[in-house]
Amino acid sequence: MRQTGIGLRAALLAGALGLAAAAPARAADDGEVKDFLLDNGMEVVIIPDHRAPIVTHMVWYKIGSADEPPGKSGIAHFFEHLMFKATTNHAAGEFDRAVSEIGGSNNAFTSYDYTAFHETVPPSALEQMMGFEADRMRNLILTDDVIKTERDVILEERRSRIDGNPQAVLDEEVDATLWQNQPYRIPVIGWMQEMEQLNRPDAKAFYDAYYRPNNAVLVVVGDVDPNAVKAMAERTYGKVARGPDLRPRIRPVEPEQNTKRTVTLTDARVSVPSFSTQWVVPSYHTAKPGEAEALDLLAEILGGDNRSRLYQQLVVKQGIASEAGAYFQGTMLDATNFTVYGAPRGDAKLVDIEAAADAEIARIVKDGVSDDELERAKTRYVRSMIFARDKQDDMANMYGSTLATGGNVKDVQEWPDRIRKVTADEVKAVAARYLVLDRSTSGYLLPQQQAGN
Amino acid sequence: MRQTGIGLRAALLAGALGLAAAAPARAADDGEVKDFLLDNGMEVVIIPDHRAPIVTHMVWYKIGSADEPPGKSGIAHFFEHLMFKATTNHAAGEFDRAVSEIGGSNNAFTSYDYTAFHETVPPSALEQMMGFEADRMRNLILTDDVIKTERDVILEERRSRIDGNPQAVLDEEVDATLWQNQPYRIPVIGWMQEMEQLNRPDAKAFYDAYYRPNNAVLVVVGDVDPNAVKAMAERTYGKVARGPDLRPRIRPVEPEQNTKRTVTLTDARVSVPSFSTQWVVPSYHTAKPGEAEALDLLAEILGGDNRSRLYQQLVVKQGIASEAGAYFQGTMLDATNFTVYGAPRGDAKLVDIEAAADAEIARIVKDGVSDDELERAKTRYVRSMIFARDKQDDMANMYGSTLATGGNVKDVQEWPDRIRKVTADEVKAVAARYLVLDRSTSGYLLPQQQAGN
Repeated sequence: MRQTGIGLRAALLAGALGLAAAAPARAADDGEVKDFLLDNGMEVVIIPDHRAPIVTHMVWYKIGSADEPPGKSGIAHFFEHLMFKATTNHAAGEFDRAVSEIGGSNNAFTSYDYTAFHETVPPSALEQMMGFEADRMRNLILTDDVIKTERDVILEERRSRIDGNPQAVLDEEVDATLWQNQPYRIPVIGWMQEMEQLNRPDAKAFYDAYYRPNNAVLVVVGDVDPNAVKAMAERTYGKVARGPDLRPRIRPVEPEQNTKRTVTLTDARVSVPSFSTQWVVPSYHTAKPGEAEALDLLAEILGGDNRSRLYQQLVVKQGIASEAGAYFQGTMLDATNFTVYGAPRGDAKLVDIEAAADAEIARIVKDGVSDDELERAKTRYVRSMIFARDKQDDMANMYGSTLATGGNVKDVQEWPDRIRKVTADEVKAVAARYLVLDRSTSGYLLPQQQAGN
Repeated sequence: MRQTGIGLRAALLAGALGLAAAAPARAADDGEVKDFLLDNGMEVVIIPDHRAPIVTHMVWYKIGSADEPPGKSGIAHFFEHLMFKATTNHAAGEFDRAVSEIGGSNNAFTSYDYTAFHETVPPSALEQMMGFEADRMRNLILTDDVIKTERDVILEERRSRIDGNPQAVLDEEVDATLWQNQPYRIPVIGWMQEMEQLNRPDAKAFYDAYYRPNNAVLVVVGDVDPNAVKAMAERTYGKVARGPDLRPRIRPVEPEQNTKRTVTLTDARVSVPSFSTQWVVPSYHTAKPGEAEALDLLAEILGGDNRSRLYQQLVVKQGIASEAGAYFQGTMLDATNFTVYGAPRGDAKLVDIEAAADAEIARIVKDGVSDDELERAKTRYVRSMIFARDKQDDMANMYGSTLATGGNVKDVQEWPDRIRKVTADEVKAVAARYLVLDRSTSGYLLPQQQAGN
């Protein structure tokens, strides 16, 4: 689950999730966030930001790989690709060219819980972007030929991005070992043997079910007048007919884990060994009040950056690790993962790095965190919010990912306050409750000659 | 996947699968096997056996836990239970009482690929049994009350059989680690949190889709006249209307395994540690010609009984193991597992047992098996066929499980010949191809104090 983003355009999502976890923020400085529904059920969030003459326009569909039917893995990501094909109104490539010609940028990404499309352009081009997006929401031409050609693209993408990359191969099997029932066990890009079978009826059924205004969130951040944006949205997206109601996104739930699990990939292409250990933990959407916030701060204190315990102890003090850290992916619709990772420096043994990391985890479970340490972690959060507000697309990602995973605008806005309220006892409690080594899943990437490491 | 049978009645299925793997057989001595379809699509197999005035009557439905919809795990086994409830023609318990009163026995079991119901009675009661079975195929009364009461029974069954048994808890998580996409990863009894939600609409939809003559196989073995049985089947099952055509049983397929995986359960209730290692291998239904037969002989030679290499080496010669063996579950609709297992004797260390077993695997991969050893293994198979023909229910299980997993009567009858044709090179080839330790999944059951073992 580490690599959540997928597509030609994955870089951004990695940023998006990192940001979603690290950058709670209030409304931008120069205007109130406006949030409303169009008559056809499409949700619209507008965040004015007048520092530069630019606007970020995103459409988030509440459909991701974890919503795919059994045996059809990869269809959500495949559909992200198909959205760049011809519609009844525009030839393939026309949208991309229009963005380039005005000096803008565009992209898309698919994750477990959502698929998003975005453009950053001068405000004068916003309505044109909306027109293009609204058009491809319903008017794609899905021929067998289009399907076959683009299917070859995603198959090649899988070969190069996953099968050619030992870390990615390992990550897939770690995910499928950590998650034994919940659909996050299935890779976003899909299993090869299922991707090969994806066809036009699959794509058509997927399009008709999920690419609908009542399953989409529009996020606009930038140098715009909210009322003007609302009028534009009504003239463009507002014309798209509401689709059938969607069933609630109730997915198979993970059973309680009772075992310690390991997954080891030994590969001649690996030069430096590494490990990661993960636990199933609640997300912001599934957690009891305050638990996800405490997990965010636990990740920050344990392994968030260079001042974290893992980094200070393993990299700086003991000098045995080249890297060591922890992260928590809170912005997920279902239960998510908390991860600790590390890699040795020089001749250090991987088992020693892992033992040192385990000792840090044990220490935090037993003794908790200090008030001082907690305050510093909170301060780093607040600071990261300020940075986040500086970037339109980070802001758009934060709102979009929250709204696409069961949250609302208020959740985003009140996040800093909820982070501030977390106590040291609460951080200790989530560490003790969730970071149990006998119920964890570890992945090991080993060079061929160090198989016995 | 070790425990395939489920229900109050699991013992038999364990026997059934063991038998299916070990006891290929020709038609019983005293009559030809008769195989035909009723007009409503129900398949009938009749195997005359006149040695004793008794008959075994089984109905196999081609529906098992691996066919369940996502999030509805346990529904197949739950339905096995519901089949013992009242119908529009018979009160709950009436069928059971009728069997008892004539001195017969009855039972049922659910597996990944099928659900079966059987009675052993005097031949004079056969038509009565058929009448009861045909009745409950369509006439069950499924009220909310019936559902709730029986759901409590299966929940309690899960608590006592799985959650109260460390080996069973471990096996579930090993299965879900070995199988990352194919539905054999889901326990037959179901995940607790999903069983709790099973309801009347789920049960009704399941009943209407799968409990149909065109999804069933009738197997009758015993002191009967085939023509008379055919007439009885037409008078009873023949009256049941054919249901809608069923979709082909095409399930998510397992991706190639690239890693070594382990699952460890440490529990205070465990006194003796043990391990098992499993590999994904083809079943009779998915294998290339001859491969499944070679896997059967490989399992026999490596760990089939006291004369096997594992037993001789680990238990007899080195004296470090209290048990050691191997098995192959060939009679499955989809890819299946090949398993090696062992437990230490006295003060021997689990790691040493495992290393010794690995060495035996490595030896067979490298040097293959001797012609003499192969002949002896084949002879043991032939002998087991003779024993199988001695037991009506073993015979019925063999035909039923084969027919419910994509095979036919000829497959059962020609099995001995196909086993006889396997060469030593073929056995070596399947060992080398499939028993790769870097792509295996091991389970470890450890006592609390030996966690570091």
